[in-house]
Amino acid sequence: MIVVMERDATEEQIQKVVSRLEREGFQVHLSRGVTRTIIGAVGDKGHLQRESLEAMEGVEKVVPVLRPYKLAAREFRPENTVVRLRQGVEIGGEAIQVIAGPCAVESFEQLLVTAEAVKASGATILRGGAFKPRTSPYSFQGLEEEGLRLLAQARAATGLPVVTEVMDPRSVPLVAEYADVLQVGARNMQNFYLLREVGAAKKPVLLKRGPSATIEEWMLAAEYIMSAGNDQIILCERGIRTFENATRNTLDLSAVPLVKSLSHLPVFVDPSHGTGRWELVTPMALAAVAAGADGVMIEVHPNPDEALSDGPQSLKPDKFAQLMRQLTRVATAVGRTLGQIAVCSA
Amino acid sequence: MIVVMERDATEEQIQKVVSRLEREGFQVHLSRGVTRTIIGAVGDKGHLQRESLEAMEGVEKVVPVLRPYKLAAREFRPENTVVRLRQGVEIGGEAIQVIAGPCAVESFEQLLVTAEAVKASGATILRGGAFKPRTSPYSFQGLEEEGLRLLAQARAATGLPVVTEVMDPRSVPLVAEYADVLQVGARNMQNFYLLREVGAAKKPVLLKRGPSATIEEWMLAAEYIMSAGNDQIILCERGIRTFENATRNTLDLSAVPLVKSLSHLPVFVDPSHGTGRWELVTPMALAAVAAGADGVMIEVHPNPDEALSDGPQSLKPDKFAQLMRQLTRVATAVGRTLGQIAVCSA
Amino acid sequence: MIVVMERDATEEQIQKVVSRLEREGFQVHLSRGVTRTIIGAVGDKGHLQRESLEAMEGVEKVVPVLRPYKLAAREFRPENTVVRLRQGVEIGGEAIQVIAGPCAVESFEQLLVTAEAVKASGATILRGGAFKPRTSPYSFQGLEEEGLRLLAQARAATGLPVVTEVMDPRSVPLVAEYADVLQVGARNMQNFYLLREVGAAKKPVLLKRGPSATIEEWMLAAEYIMSAGNDQIILCERGIRTFENATRNTLDLSAVPLVKSLSHLPVFVDPSHGTGRWELVTPMALAAVAAGADGVMIEVHPNPDEALSDGPQSLKPDKFAQLMRQLTRVATAVGRTLGQIAVCSA
Amino acid sequence: MIVVMERDATEEQIQKVVSRLEREGFQVHLSRGVTRTIIGAVGDKGHLQRESLEAMEGVEKVVPVLRPYKLAAREFRPENTVVRLRQGVEIGGEAIQVIAGPCAVESFEQLLVTAEAVKASGATILRGGAFKPRTSPYSFQGLEEEGLRLLAQARAATGLPVVTEVMDPRSVPLVAEYADVLQVGARNMQNFYLLREVGAAKKPVLLKRGPSATIEEWMLAAEYIMSAGNDQIILCERGIRTFENATRNTLDLSAVPLVKSLSHLPVFVDPSHGTGRWELVTPMALAAVAAGADGVMIEVHPNPDEALSDGPQSLKPDKFAQLMRQLTRVATAVGRTLGQIAVCSA
Repeated sequence: MIVVMERDATEEQIQKVVSRLEREGFQVHLSRGVTRTIIGAVGDKGHLQRESLEAMEGVEKVVPVLRPYKLAAREFRPENTVVRLRQGVEIGGEAIQVIAGPCAVESFEQLLVTAEAVKASGATILRGGAFKPRTSPYSFQGLEEEGLRLLAQARAATGLPVVTEVMDPRSVPLVAEYADVLQVGARNMQNFYLLREVGAAKKPVLLKRGPSATIEEWMLAAEYIMSAGNDQIILCERGIRTFENATRNTLDLSAVPLVKSLSHLPVFVDPSHGTGRWELVTPMALAAVAAGADGVMIEVHPNPDEALSDGPQSLKPDKFAQLMRQLTRVATAVGRTLGQIAVCSA
Repeated sequence: MIVVMERDATEEQIQKVVSRLEREGFQVHLSRGVTRTIIGAVGDKGHLQRESLEAMEGVEKVVPVLRPYKLAAREFRPENTVVRLRQGVEIGGEAIQVIAGPCAVESFEQLLVTAEAVKASGATILRGGAFKPRTSPYSFQGLEEEGLRLLAQARAATGLPVVTEVMDPRSVPLVAEYADVLQVGARNMQNFYLLREVGAAKKPVLLKRGPSATIEEWMLAAEYIMSAGNDQIILCERGIRTFENATRNTLDLSAVPLVKSLSHLPVFVDPSHGTGRWELVTPMALAAVAAGADGVMIEVHPNPDEALSDGPQSLKPDKFAQLMRQLTRVATAVGRTLGQIAVCSA
Repeated sequence: MIVVMERDATEEQIQKVVSRLEREGFQVHLSRGVTRTIIGAVGDKGHLQRESLEAMEGVEKVVPVLRPYKLAAREFRPENTVVRLRQGVEIGGEAIQVIAGPCAVESFEQLLVTAEAVKASGATILRGGAFKPRTSPYSFQGLEEEGLRLLAQARAATGLPVVTEVMDPRSVPLVAEYADVLQVGARNMQNFYLLREVGAAKKPVLLKRGPSATIEEWMLAAEYIMSAGNDQIILCERGIRTFENATRNTLDLSAVPLVKSLSHLPVFVDPSHGTGRWELVTPMALAAVAAGADGVMIEVHPNPDEALSDGPQSLKPDKFAQLMRQLTRVATAVGRTLGQIAVCSA
Repeated sequence: MIVVMERDATEEQIQKVVSRLEREGFQVHLSRGVTRTIIGAVGDKGHLQRESLEAMEGVEKVVPVLRPYKLAAREFRPENTVVRLRQGVEIGGEAIQVIAGPCAVESFEQLLVTAEAVKASGATILRGGAFKPRTSPYSFQGLEEEGLRLLAQARAATGLPVVTEVMDPRSVPLVAEYADVLQVGARNMQNFYLLREVGAAKKPVLLKRGPSATIEEWMLAAEYIMSAGNDQIILCERGIRTFENATRNTLDLSAVPLVKSLSHLPVFVDPSHGTGRWELVTPMALAAVAAGADGVMIEVHPNPDEALSDGPQSLKPDKFAQLMRQLTRVATAVGRTLGQIAVCSA
């Protein structure tokens, strides 16, 4: 930790900061310049809050030296984390996996038609929302437990592992009973009670980045889950909120290589929510893989203009099939392959 | 609802949209221009999702005409909502109320000293966090139920009603047992299960604006609570996340007069979180009242540099006393008064 | 300057940074922690670019200690700068000054009617655009030199000093011939050739904050003007661009007290551009003064729905008169007065 | 244009809007709903400003139907614009072109070494700044005309066409004398006098997107240049300003396919400024091409830690060579090739 004192900090204020740091077990180095004194505090305590120092008189700013997360950091675990699902689907390895399916589960037919179509095109994981976070209380909120049952049936029929969102800490055991991967949605990235519950569950977690979360906050959300005992985490960039409203969100693809260097966890990209427009989904899925993503998550609906949620950003099955063909070529260009589902399925 | 068709939309696509709208019960008006056709749909159905139309072929954009919230809208309830707390404290009336206290409850002594000081300066409501939403799992998370008990003791000693945050839907009944006002924090503004639980509770709710929430999303969060049966809501602007990082957040004071015109609910401002720097708290509290806020929420700590949370933005009791003197003058200048606690307290 | 080395920086990399710093004349202090080495560099050289260090191998980040601006900084000139205009109008002193007038000069009649009305209500400076920065090449671009002449006539008729925008470095001498204050618009805050030209002019400059400029960048823009020899600068906050689009911009009022502490220059607020909606102009003008602004800049038009520019954010003269009455009360509440124009005018 | 009237708009207010629209030559359609009246105005006048209607009493909002730009719009020119430079370099065709070189021209040796290296790796255009827009007046501002001469010498030696920034409207003729492509930098995207001057020049223009410019504003900046008579424009996405500061800017790659659909102009991406970190340049360059960009612009410096500008985001020549090998593979994967310089060079 580095403490920069104000220009007119008194000797007494400087000494008060030094004593405080020493009392907390830091080794202290003082650099006195002509206009300012800088206090370097070496040691890895973590007890002392940065903000507690910033509140001291005479302190201009405090600059942390160490990153505030550990379990999620690559410097503490250099090798990639690989999350293993049924049917031999491995996330975070050499192969790129594609999650596809409807935004919301609407009926068994809608789900099964979509699941079979995306499987035929090469998707290895099925998505579908049973509990839907909706901005308006008057929008369709999902089929809830019935939706989970339909997902399990679609998995039985196709062999595809399923990912679905859990929003309420109380529902984690129920959702974990049905799902292969628990999704924590963007709006819940800092729902700390939910993070602790999925941390306690013995299921992989797909952790979406919050729409206004910095990368550091996202890593700390992963740290919550890991510190609760679960390190089967897949990070998913899905766009951040900016001034630009020509797209639903601004997909921050630079986050992909950056997070891959900061963390050992696999990183996915959701270009459907990231752009909100189906015409942009394919180019941004290709870009995500070119940037180093471990997979993409794509909304597919057999009939987008009848979809109960997110129609404008859903691909029809034939467009999705095209996407997969192009994705295979881009994956090869960057030295990767597309994942495959084990043959003896269902 | 207005549907703008693409330049090259076919007659068939136009008719498909018209039929869909008519099927849903809208009255439809067509305007055919040289380059584009516009479809006006009159009626207040709400069943048909805007996005479902946007997913239809040939549709360029859909412009909603009605606001998506009702219960929270001033056009459906013109008179101001007044939230009444114990000791005659009324929020949303002519008097401005000041909530003050420490960010986190740390001990009975810290809380009581602060409560007595802020009461002496004119605050009418005590704040203090028992459950703390913290970005890092390694930061102090609050005294939890013990913190709630201390708040109740401080209320018994001073007569001040108390507001405290609830983060977990499961804790709503517990927190409601102790608190006079349930606070929904900024990071939980779209925690829809929590909104429904506080909607079901029979206690006033202080609903903070999310750091990246638009005003419309904030109104819809209030609508969630109201549609669950609770209309005792106090809105609280606490800064939004922008590119500027000289302050912790960017306090959006324009939201105050704007929300007062859109909604009948009272609006507070939290300049402590809104700026993150104690030197800016007083000027921004004055500005909030000048802009028309019904009250402010201020962090006060007897010893900010030992605070377990938010020290840099906490005022010492003497600075808070000064703030209150200035606030009284500004309130008078805009034709309001400062609220008072009823004499026969506790 | 503080250099934080990467976790696995080699001894050679550390020494290379140390040598570089010493070669540039810095005094260097090394702090070796368990996981990282920190290099403190004391001295005020300014020659060495921070980014040049950041490009060195093994360097994780460089934290500047000193602010990058001097002439504009309060720490180098503690007393307030006061800008003096004709008719005894002083900006940055105890009195609050109000600039008012139409967005664009449209005709002599429109300008004179407005000028007389705002003067009658207490405004002390007249605004009016002759050169208009317009997003579209097809929008009205201003009356240009004819507009300048009309401003001079309105000044002759009312005695009000005038402020008008200059956009092109080549027009600075022309505009300086007519105007009392040269306005640098938000979109030109980093038009460095324009900054140098207005720096060379012997006229006060009103420097608007860019819509995506940090406070530090704004101070550096002032530094450009000051380093070219002109220290008669008035800063003007006019809203920043954020995700919120319920208002045209997000007026960042926290910038007012913050900049007043960082700099000795006077600070104005433009709530007309800051909000884009006339209903919000009065509350935000009051808030600006409560927050410590030295003045406000208000768009007034006798007939907003016929205005050639910015009608929706312009006040009618009667609303402006009301604003001025309220502003007087708020100014008094914060210990200030409203400026007056010297009697023997014109 | 669609005008949505307020809920309580009077019949007189409605009629006033209708008359105004009819007076301007629009055909008007009225839709009266239970709570609101909507006025559709058909016709393509452009005279009537949207804001002028928004200022009328009783008007809630005005929704434009047509896009505000024409010359730059694909709907008015369906086929791709191809910009042709010397040596057979074509921008916007099937081949992807790579612009590379140092941020700033520092010396002939530095420039020539870089130019030869990037040419050897496959770059077809040389970049180098002679006039540098710098946030601080104390930073290196470029070699100015001497820098232009060095660029011309490097072109003579290598055959590579050169692109360099012009910042001052007065310098356009000078820069146009030396450069093959005039760059308008991000901070000058709305410097309208500069746009008109480069519009009048007979040289291709590389128009960078402003850090807080919407896509529509960017298109309108291109419209300024085109309406001044120059349609040889290359658009260049270089990152927008958001709350995330782990990267220098947030590279908005979704803008690439979006702008390609809205406009016929070629689109480049600058991942060096877009990320500010050299480690992210290669993955984001690959992503840009996968997303459909017509080329990328890369900062290369033989010795980044001695660079006078932008060292941290500059690649060394060997890293650039690697990038080019990977880029070739990704270009092939999306059905494109890398451009080549004609053999008989210089």
